[in-house]
Amino acid sequence: MKKYLYAFEEGSKELKKILGGKGANLAEMKKIGLPVPNGYTITAEACIKYYDDGEKIDEKLIKGIFERLKELEGKTGKIFGDNKNPLLVSVRSGAAISMPGMMDTILNLGLNDNSVIGVSELTNNPRFAYDSYRRFIQMFSDVVLNISKHKFDSILDSVKERENLSSDPELSVDNLKEIIEKYKKLVKKETKIDFPVDPNKQLIMAIESVFESWNNSRAIIYRNINEIPHDMGTAVNIQEMVFGNMGDTSGTGVAFTRNPATGENKFFGEFLLNAQGEDVVAGIRTPKEINELENVLPEVYNDFSTISRKLEKHYRDMQDIEFTIERGKLYFLQTRTAKRTANAAINIAVDMVEEGMITKEEAILRINPDQIEQLLHPTFDDAALKESQIIAKGLPASPGAATGKVYFTSEDVVEAKARGEKAILVRVETSPEDIEGMVSGEGILTARGGMTSHAAVVARGMGKCCVAGCGDVRVETYNSLFKTANAVVNEGEYISIDGNTGNVYKGEIKTKEVAMSGNFGTLMSWADDIRRLNIRTNADNERDSKTAIKFGAEGIGLCRTEHMFFNEERIFAVRQMIVSTTIEQRKIALKKLLPYQKDDFVSIFNVMKELPVTIRLLDPPLHEFLPSEDEDIKNLALELGMEFNNLKSIVNELREFNPMLGHRGVRLAVTYPEIYEMQVKAIMLAAVEVKKKNGYDIKPEIMVPLVGFNKEFTIIKKLIRETADEILKEENMEMTYKIGTMIEVPRAALTADEIAKEAEFFSFGTNDLTQMTLGFSRDDSGKFIPEYKKKEIFESDPFETIDQDGVGQLIKIAFEKGKKVRPDIKIGICGEHGGEPKSIEFCDKVGLKYVSCSPYRVPVARLAAAQATIKNKK
Amino acid sequence: MKKYLYAFEEGSKELKKILGGKGANLAEMKKIGLPVPNGYTITAEACIKYYDDGEKIDEKLIKGIFERLKELEGKTGKIFGDNKNPLLVSVRSGAAISMPGMMDTILNLGLNDNSVIGVSELTNNPRFAYDSYRRFIQMFSDVVLNISKHKFDSILDSVKERENLSSDPELSVDNLKEIIEKYKKLVKKETKIDFPVDPNKQLIMAIESVFESWNNSRAIIYRNINEIPHDMGTAVNIQEMVFGNMGDTSGTGVAFTRNPATGENKFFGEFLLNAQGEDVVAGIRTPKEINELENVLPEVYNDFSTISRKLEKHYRDMQDIEFTIERGKLYFLQTRTAKRTANAAINIAVDMVEEGMITKEEAILRINPDQIEQLLHPTFDDAALKESQIIAKGLPASPGAATGKVYFTSEDVVEAKARGEKAILVRVETSPEDIEGMVSGEGILTARGGMTSHAAVVARGMGKCCVAGCGDVRVETYNSLFKTANAVVNEGEYISIDGNTGNVYKGEIKTKEVAMSGNFGTLMSWADDIRRLNIRTNADNERDSKTAIKFGAEGIGLCRTEHMFFNEERIFAVRQMIVSTTIEQRKIALKKLLPYQKDDFVSIFNVMKELPVTIRLLDPPLHEFLPSEDEDIKNLALELGMEFNNLKSIVNELREFNPMLGHRGVRLAVTYPEIYEMQVKAIMLAAVEVKKKNGYDIKPEIMVPLVGFNKEFTIIKKLIRETADEILKEENMEMTYKIGTMIEVPRAALTADEIAKEAEFFSFGTNDLTQMTLGFSRDDSGKFIPEYKKKEIFESDPFETIDQDGVGQLIKIAFEKGKKVRPDIKIGICGEHGGEPKSIEFCDKVGLKYVSCSPYRVPVARLAAAQATIKNKK
Repeated sequence: MKKYLYAFEEGSKELKKILGGKGANLAEMKKIGLPVPNGYTITAEACIKYYDDGEKIDEKLIKGIFERLKELEGKTGKIFGDNKNPLLVSVRSGAAISMPGMMDTILNLGLNDNSVIGVSELTNNPRFAYDSYRRFIQMFSDVVLNISKHKFDSILDSVKERENLSSDPELSVDNLKEIIEKYKKLVKKETKIDFPVDPNKQLIMAIESVFESWNNSRAIIYRNINEIPHDMGTAVNIQEMVFGNMGDTSGTGVAFTRNPATGENKFFGEFLLNAQGEDVVAGIRTPKEINELENVLPEVYNDFSTISRKLEKHYRDMQDIEFTIERGKLYFLQTRTAKRTANAAINIAVDMVEEGMITKEEAILRINPDQIEQLLHPTFDDAALKESQIIAKGLPASPGAATGKVYFTSEDVVEAKARGEKAILVRVETSPEDIEGMVSGEGILTARGGMTSHAAVVARGMGKCCVAGCGDVRVETYNSLFKTANAVVNEGEYISIDGNTGNVYKGEIKTKEVAMSGNFGTLMSWADDIRRLNIRTNADNERDSKTAIKFGAEGIGLCRTEHMFFNEERIFAVRQMIVSTTIEQRKIALKKLLPYQKDDFVSIFNVMKELPVTIRLLDPPLHEFLPSEDEDIKNLALELGMEFNNLKSIVNELREFNPMLGHRGVRLAVTYPEIYEMQVKAIMLAAVEVKKKNGYDIKPEIMVPLVGFNKEFTIIKKLIRETADEILKEENMEMTYKIGTMIEVPRAALTADEIAKEAEFFSFGTNDLTQMTLGFSRDDSGKFIPEYKKKEIFESDPFETIDQDGVGQLIKIAFEKGKKVRPDIKIGICGEHGGEPKSIEFCDKVGLKYVSCSPYRVPVARLAAAQATIKNKK
Repeated sequence: MKKYLYAFEEGSKELKKILGGKGANLAEMKKIGLPVPNGYTITAEACIKYYDDGEKIDEKLIKGIFERLKELEGKTGKIFGDNKNPLLVSVRSGAAISMPGMMDTILNLGLNDNSVIGVSELTNNPRFAYDSYRRFIQMFSDVVLNISKHKFDSILDSVKERENLSSDPELSVDNLKEIIEKYKKLVKKETKIDFPVDPNKQLIMAIESVFESWNNSRAIIYRNINEIPHDMGTAVNIQEMVFGNMGDTSGTGVAFTRNPATGENKFFGEFLLNAQGEDVVAGIRTPKEINELENVLPEVYNDFSTISRKLEKHYRDMQDIEFTIERGKLYFLQTRTAKRTANAAINIAVDMVEEGMITKEEAILRINPDQIEQLLHPTFDDAALKESQIIAKGLPASPGAATGKVYFTSEDVVEAKARGEKAILVRVETSPEDIEGMVSGEGILTARGGMTSHAAVVARGMGKCCVAGCGDVRVETYNSLFKTANAVVNEGEYISIDGNTGNVYKGEIKTKEVAMSGNFGTLMSWADDIRRLNIRTNADNERDSKTAIKFGAEGIGLCRTEHMFFNEERIFAVRQMIVSTTIEQRKIALKKLLPYQKDDFVSIFNVMKELPVTIRLLDPPLHEFLPSEDEDIKNLALELGMEFNNLKSIVNELREFNPMLGHRGVRLAVTYPEIYEMQVKAIMLAAVEVKKKNGYDIKPEIMVPLVGFNKEFTIIKKLIRETADEILKEENMEMTYKIGTMIEVPRAALTADEIAKEAEFFSFGTNDLTQMTLGFSRDDSGKFIPEYKKKEIFESDPFETIDQDGVGQLIKIAFEKGKKVRPDIKIGICGEHGGEPKSIEFCDKVGLKYVSCSPYRVPVARLAAAQATIKNKK
């Protein structure tokens, strides 16, 4: 015959299928010696039998239930329904697969007119006892007898009204007794039977009710949605209730085995004597610090301390514990792995390795890499934050906290900074023309654009705080203000933006720098020892390169050259180049740009020394460098000495319907080879200069963007090779350099074998590859991505985490085809995904050589890469 | 010992490697009995030996050459250098792989002071003889002696100047003799040797020179570019020169074995007696029709006729022949397969099948499917065309010929038509708002956009003539005119556009309809018997459906529903729907659209009867339906009773950076399911109505655009299924309908196995699939595609012919994955490529079920599909 009943000490976590998740967990806690309140479990198989028997509990089982109840009385020294030392129990459902809130639970079962006296005396708190009794009747009636809760509430309300009371706690014991009588009458009226005062009867009815709840309609719907079989049944757990309000040797509390804010290895928490859990939450009495327990109840504290340490050892992690002391006896009601700050997480992980509790690998796996970035950016002062008004919420596009005066144009921000003001740039969306404002501002707020919009990408690259795609914000630049649902903010007024949450606050909020602890360094060095992937950075200038080096970057994976074009000194020559109608004119303009570009590269090479630097040649369409408004075109025409109409028609001709899929990248080079020629000259001249001056053996990696056809690459590679070799010959210098390509057009991935015949390295540009493979414009998809997440069309924004099924397939195809043709080809990734842990895990699995990410993501990537190595080794 | 010399009659086309292309071809002609002038070939191996021997011709070979020359004298009865009956020869290079124009050729070799007398007497034309001699000296000196041509020209010019002559033919015999003397002196001065008057010496020098020309720099570059090995060498062909100007039994002509314009089985061509080929070309004398030859030289005509028929049988196709008659003897100088009009091509192919000359399969393979479309559209009257001025040239975007007055807005065209005028819509580019103007106009001319721009696609769909992407045209709508390099055309002035050539003409040009011959029908019925692919059409309305049925369409593969939204009566409701801020408002607006949409489908179902109709639900982004200019927004705001600012900000919010990758297709349905709900209702109500009224068993195929994730499709499929079933229930009707998806996003192709779990059919949308796979916006790539073609980055515009290596790979992946999961899944293609022969061949090879194309391409597709079946069977 099947065993339908298990005392907690008989079970274990392996029996989850028949004991349910909760029952198995309670059994496991018991097994490792935790003082959990006693009880037993009726198996899910009993539930199945209940249904097989036509929704009846078998006589034998009923007999068994009461035998187990007797045992429970023996273990607890309490008696069911007793008026001196009554046993009260909880009756809870618990299926093998968790279905939170779907099925029934009854607390304080065993209360009746008799046992309530015992509770009253033991707690010396008649109000508590009768209020518990009242609540029990209401709960039991709702769950077991199907009497609507609000009918009980109206009785309660009528008494309160009569007595002129505004809250439940003001009810006197007599009020409660009167209510209990009225409740009973209501039950009689509704069900035609008396409220069951016999605890045994209560118990069987409650168990039946839990069995029945397996098939209530919300449980069925839940199982349908989550594809849980309908024939598994639920177990029922019957457990002794314990009370912390039975005098001064009773109490209740919550505690962490270590400090969840700092990680310090010291109990952290609080308790209240002679109190129930609700009292702690209600905040009427002030709880005491956990270590004071040692003074008032030394033995209990001793037990607590010993068991907690044991618990931590058993679970090998910091625990978050709920406990109750009933008349000097300590009970653990719950224990779970504790949440913690990033800082604490690191300290605890490193400490635990040093304590020999976990391995370095485990320590590394313990840290959520995304959390690390918090440590590198300022945050708002918690107290100040609480008092601030949230006026809008956008996407947390680039972490950090920033506070400053609102300005709506890049120029105004630059001027504000010059005046010594802190400024926040607020725009509908940013474009490359806004770079200087983004550099000068404390942070950026945009109304449109997703996590990989221009604002977001550039801000993350700079390590600047940014809230993007804040749809609540309506920018009215012409009125010098922006509006949200509940606020109007004028130019020059303070706002604060939180790049970790996406919140926008009115007014100025103090920020604080989080100190980086020494353990952080230790952890990162372990990560570096373990990881297989190299970590490079995306950096376009000296400042970013320095930041990245500080954070441990091992090279530059993507140095974009277009940002260099926007500098005020150069943009004029850039524009001259674009409006040229002959090659000669264009070459003259390019010649002016050459020394600037060269200097850019010199400064970067000097920072990176001999680390690899991959430089991407010009990528964006030329119209990005021209103004679009008539007013600006007029001014530029004046500057260039052109007719307005001429310039306007050039601007119009360059305009594109879908610039993302337009005349850019290598396509520019095919039509205007002289642009890349100038850039390659600049790179090589810079490399030569740095090598000559400082002796660094620079090995530039020149990268061609947007290649889709092998012949495109072949043509441009030839141009690069000829240009570079000519410089080396002129300078009488030997130098190794590589020419490779981005893989960002789906066609390039599909024909990577052809392209690899010529390309010396590949770098996956997963931003564009995602845009094209999914057909999602990153600047426009913000309008439907939230709905897609809500409807679970995808788990996460594909611009944040690589879409492994789609984009990932192309990456694998390209990797395999590339390696087949050129086994030593260096393959990395330089899209935004290069700094995202799940994507890094994928890159490690595929076998890439490196990931490249923005400087502030470098530590994140180092850790994530180590985790990837550990996970993929398994 | 190797055989280095072959008389023409000794060779054959199999010996191409050693005889070169030309030598092998001459040998082959000889072999089948053609009267080609006699000659022999020095093999390419002799050339290799020449280089091996240090650029010297071996004595033995020289001996052989002269032995062969002797034989030639025997065969021709002419003697080298003779003053009575001189033998003249041509010396031509001819490599195994054709290198046109790269190497040397010398004509009339053997002319000297002696033989010139013979030529003079035989032709009775001393001027011809001495001019030939003069030319020979110049050519020989240029090619063999490396004396620059212009030095000879200046001698010629000085004589002409002195004699006060304006052209070469005015030179007298004495002038020519004087020039010959001066030429010889020049040679002596430049080379220090006399001009070789010994024909034997001329011959050896010429042969050496041809050998040398194998390694001239332009030949080397050509071989490098075309990857031709450098060690193959060239053969040298020495062939008797024949002359048609040796009296009244000599002559020259060109002829076709059938009529190349109509296909009639009758010789077609012309000849001149006592004339050289140049005389025919020069047009000084009027040639006679070929059949008159029978009267003047009956024996020659008889030979010509017999040999021509034989030739046609041998090559099994109409031949284009050049011939010369020398003193009553007929020589064929060249014969090749003749070019012909589409009409002729069809007639000839069908005739030849009936004559038993070729099979039906061969007949089908003979017709260039692209040519067929000509037959379906009007063309310009040839005579009128010759007198017209071309003012610009664009892309031949949609075939036909149109003439009309220029208007710059859709409204103006509509009004002009209402006044009874013929109008041409001229725009920078068209957008969906221009539809009515495109319908009302005779043709469309755009300054921007490629072969698959909006204008091109819509015009082809309508069968309307269109010239697109005409960069020469600068449209100045504000001045009501457009400019080209050589013309200014004002509004209301006539232009004519040729959709077959892309030419734009000033003024009105008469057009003519080409009659479709009965043979066309015969050929198409053969094609229908042979082809495996079904041919469907892309049609959105009754008119197009009727056209397509007339042309043999077997169903609709793509019925776009968005064009239906632009009709004046409906656009208001469409716009109301778009600006709705609540679902309720949107539903009210959609309800207004429902009856219109239903009627659209009723009229289409009634035309298509029980043929399959695939209807694509709404695809374009909503902003396409809203105006973009402030003025129009103001008007619309007034109409809608909205504030201008409100509407303007809605317009702005809907605006997208890359609409192609934006909020459109299934993404609209995920966010606004009520739009598709309305459309599905309209489809089902229409199907029910037609079934009830006319008894047709309609089986709608409902297609979801832009799916990239299987879950997207699942969600929308459920919506469609529920909506459709509800209509069927309400109408108490049983009906089979299918729900499928476009495969146009690369991700959909990559995850087609997932999508096929739910989708009942796939249709490749290769326009969008090409855009995304290549990252080419079809509206913007016109700027670089010409350069890409020029640099041979791809062979043909990937928007015209499927890019098999890239896009084709995805199609194959999707096909295989789809079939694996759902073996009976119906898979077709509905992109523009569906009407393009090479792409159709690819679709057949992959195994698709059908291709779908615009109505006017249906016959093209039927023929191309038959060709594909034949080719892929091989």
